[in-house]
Amino acid sequence: MRRLPERGRYDRATIDAILDAMPLAHVGTVIDGAPVVTPTLQWREGDRVYWHGSAASRMLRSAADHPVCLTVSLLDGLVLARSAFHHSVNYRSVMLFGQAEKVSAPADKERLLRAFVDGLYPGRWTGLRPMTPQELKATTVLSMPIDEASAKLRCGPPKDDEADYALPIWAGVVPVQLSVLAPEPDPRNRPEVEIPATLKDLRLG
Amino acid sequence: MRRLPERGRYDRATIDAILDAMPLAHVGTVIDGAPVVTPTLQWREGDRVYWHGSAASRMLRSAADHPVCLTVSLLDGLVLARSAFHHSVNYRSVMLFGQAEKVSAPADKERLLRAFVDGLYPGRWTGLRPMTPQELKATTVLSMPIDEASAKLRCGPPKDDEADYALPIWAGVVPVQLSVLAPEPDPRNRPEVEIPATLKDLRLG
Repeated sequence: MRRLPERGRYDRATIDAILDAMPLAHVGTVIDGAPVVTPTLQWREGDRVYWHGSAASRMLRSAADHPVCLTVSLLDGLVLARSAFHHSVNYRSVMLFGQAEKVSAPADKERLLRAFVDGLYPGRWTGLRPMTPQELKATTVLSMPIDEASAKLRCGPPKDDEADYALPIWAGVVPVQLSVLAPEPDPRNRPEVEIPATLKDLRLG
Repeated sequence: MRRLPERGRYDRATIDAILDAMPLAHVGTVIDGAPVVTPTLQWREGDRVYWHGSAASRMLRSAADHPVCLTVSLLDGLVLARSAFHHSVNYRSVMLFGQAEKVSAPADKERLLRAFVDGLYPGRWTGLRPMTPQELKATTVLSMPIDEASAKLRCGPPKDDEADYALPIWAGVVPVQLSVLAPEPDPRNRPEVEIPATLKDLRLG
């Protein structure tokens, strides 16, 4: 359970790699003075991250033009040490701080949503039933810059107090990872449709 | 990318099952008026959740006696629909709202930390190098009640507009899950130590 200062990393390559590895994010906003942490999916384009949701969403309305914190975390392993104190986890995380901005032009929104869908499922957008103006209107897209950002990560074996290495206690790492399983077709798929080949290459984490 | 109102669940059995399935939590606090979302591990005991960290942690100091939001989320699948709008994810999440309280009595802290370690790794605490008073002092344990809580989840196949089911578009779910891989012993383990049997039963999610 060690929480001694871990390595903070601020280089953009590290930050971008973590953001790109994991769409699940937790967005913090302040509503009536209290924090609210909402899980959502994020995607990155250049120097900004984006997320979206229903135009009616309280979280999105509380985020637009207000300070937010968007955090992406990946759990990579459980670290078992020889003392309780040095138990830890291996992880990668990014925290972005800044003001959320609403994307207003419908054409920009549509382009961004397309990048989001095609980013997860390459080439999918073109084959879908086109988005309607009503759907676009019902969808809010928010963004924030990647400028006030930090990455933190831990990897590798436990770090014990030197004297404790002599103890006959099993120590080590139990790696964990997000696995993508075999796609389950919708029972209502038309008989002639085939699974997109790109879905088989899908990886998270 | 549908964010139409999903099923909210408030029953304690659902909330507890999600908290117990996933130690990774995201804790939201407010620092200087702005939200901060920090990944940490939580554990539950009865009607409260607990988390801990360094006594020097800014997050923990900003949480104690202040409103916090603790969110636990599990991504269970990617949901591909016939329109972009109805794309979604399968997930389970819990949001807890309330005031964080610091556990002050050293004996309580130690008991709780033991429950945390033994909760993840049954029987581990007894075999560890004992915690020192200094380590206990350097560790802050926080808790909050599970009273203002909600669970949200989505499962199952995509839900498309009725007319879209006639389209020849592949739709379905790509399940994802957190896998626990084979433990990696610390290279500095003493040759005689054996891996604890309980580690092989470890599951997350």
